Amino acid sequence: MGKYCFGVDLGGTTVKIGLFDTEGNVLDKWEIPTRKEENGSRILPDIAAAILDKAAERNIAKEDVAGVGIGVPGPVDDNGVVHRAVNLGWDVININETLGGLLQMPVKAGNDANVAALGEMWCGGGKGCTNMVLATLGTGVGGGIIVNGKMVTGSTGAGGEIGHIHIEDNEPDACGCGNHGCLEQYASATGVVRLAERKLEASDKDSVLRAAKENGKISAKTVFDAVKEGDALACEIAEQFGDYLGKGFAAIAGVVNPEVFVLGGGVSKAGEILCEYVSKYYTKYVFQGSRNAQFKLATLGNDAGIYGAAKLVLE
Amino acid sequence: MGKYCFGVDLGGTTVKIGLFDTEGNVLDKWEIPTRKEENGSRILPDIAAAILDKAAERNIAKEDVAGVGIGVPGPVDDNGVVHRAVNLGWDVININETLGGLLQMPVKAGNDANVAALGEMWCGGGKGCTNMVLATLGTGVGGGIIVNGKMVTGSTGAGGEIGHIHIEDNEPDACGCGNHGCLEQYASATGVVRLAERKLEASDKDSVLRAAKENGKISAKTVFDAVKEGDALACEIAEQFGDYLGKGFAAIAGVVNPEVFVLGGGVSKAGEILCEYVSKYYTKYVFQGSRNAQFKLATLGNDAGIYGAAKLVLE
Repeated sequence: MGKYCFGVDLGGTTVKIGLFDTEGNVLDKWEIPTRKEENGSRILPDIAAAILDKAAERNIAKEDVAGVGIGVPGPVDDNGVVHRAVNLGWDVININETLGGLLQMPVKAGNDANVAALGEMWCGGGKGCTNMVLATLGTGVGGGIIVNGKMVTGSTGAGGEIGHIHIEDNEPDACGCGNHGCLEQYASATGVVRLAERKLEASDKDSVLRAAKENGKISAKTVFDAVKEGDALACEIAEQFGDYLGKGFAAIAGVVNPEVFVLGGGVSKAGEILCEYVSKYYTKYVFQGSRNAQFKLATLGNDAGIYGAAKLVLE
Repeated sequence: MGKYCFGVDLGGTTVKIGLFDTEGNVLDKWEIPTRKEENGSRILPDIAAAILDKAAERNIAKEDVAGVGIGVPGPVDDNGVVHRAVNLGWDVININETLGGLLQMPVKAGNDANVAALGEMWCGGGKGCTNMVLATLGTGVGGGIIVNGKMVTGSTGAGGEIGHIHIEDNEPDACGCGNHGCLEQYASATGVVRLAERKLEASDKDSVLRAAKENGKISAKTVFDAVKEGDALACEIAEQFGDYLGKGFAAIAGVVNPEVFVLGGGVSKAGEILCEYVSKYYTKYVFQGSRNAQFKLATLGNDAGIYGAAKLVLE
């Protein structure tokens, strides 16, 4: 096996690429634009050119490259076939074959959220664990499940779609997916804001969040900053958040019994306090045998994707 | 690899043993009592003797045996270590080493519910699938999760404990596990009876179930028999059952995105009608990407354990 590998994180605007050694050290890291014109037909040739140029620049021979891993924003099956990645203009593409053909190197593709989980397991918040769950709490809630060191892709590439686990029977508003009461409606950045706005409306309590709301500046960050300052209303919101996410994690534990839950995405910038609220309610809902799971923050930030993609090809 | 393998299903009263070829054909099948005295110290020697006797009787040489798989009623880690199987009087035992030492053959142990899932995948309701979930709806609700053809054991052997996924926020009664609102409280045989008794109490509707209740003969079977006869109250109970189990399955699909859910255990004797009720509510709750999962009945009955145990050793 080669001494090097490349990890590619294909996003809707930019492609992040990392050159790694097989121990998980980043040797180089750069970005190229994602050219979505012509149904995204330029994307893979652009990535291939960027990798071949880098290899030439650094005098890395093909035999020294173990392969190229790539995380894609859409469902990817175990053969590397993407079925419609709307963001990129793609219909059905076999990435392993197409990019592999361009590079003449082994290529392995995975869904970006699952790949990020692999990255956090390899070098981030889940380091040393082989059974873990990454929950990415951003605009939505994404997830990646690792069982025995491997990503759970699922039968149609929808493994780890934890944001749409049903968690509340009495939700009047629809989720982006059309259902009602999805985890994402409460545990995402926008979900926390929704919880906050509802609480402010239903309560007469004084709170620093009232001013934030009037300035249009209420966010997951303002809520958890207020919690840290002891704001009583903000604490009630954090309890609700913890209850929903803890309940969702307990359901996940009833399936895969992970060693650790790793929290990433924008909301996770609130820090360790998030783990406290989630773990309190997780313990309430979970089955005895899964009670000892740990809660940690993701540590790789936006680089989780390139780490995980590189790891994908080393498996 | 040998031409034969043995599958052992270790229960609290009897040990079932099967002799298989590597294609999944049962060549012989028999039972011995489970001797729990002396902290269960006779159990593994009894099993070893039964297997060695059978091999001698059939002139099967050790080299021709691929190995012996065994399903155990308790959490088993990936090294074959059982941590307290209360039913058997066991504390901590490494089954792979202990039984392997007695037999001088490769031995692989797993949790009985997970092993049964492997059996249904190999030769039963999930045949031909590599991503499946077995839900055993008996006195309680047990489960086994198969991802990419392998059992999900979990980090502490609690993988697939789906019966204790929290599914109802407003449940006054406690589950056997101490929590409130577990799937098992609604989808087990006793759960269906609970739903029926509550419904009979809350409603004035006429129903064949009223007489069954007075005779103390209300059961999951009487409920679903009444559904087949068009009893309106029984149909309402079946809708509730389908709602709870469909919601639980949708949560599981948000984690592992299986191709098929296989229903086993006593409640599954109600037949295909069960799949209709569950699939209706599954579709309501599940995320788009997992919508195409199938629902099938288990076909191996009490033999799922020996099939799965035999398969365990062929992996």
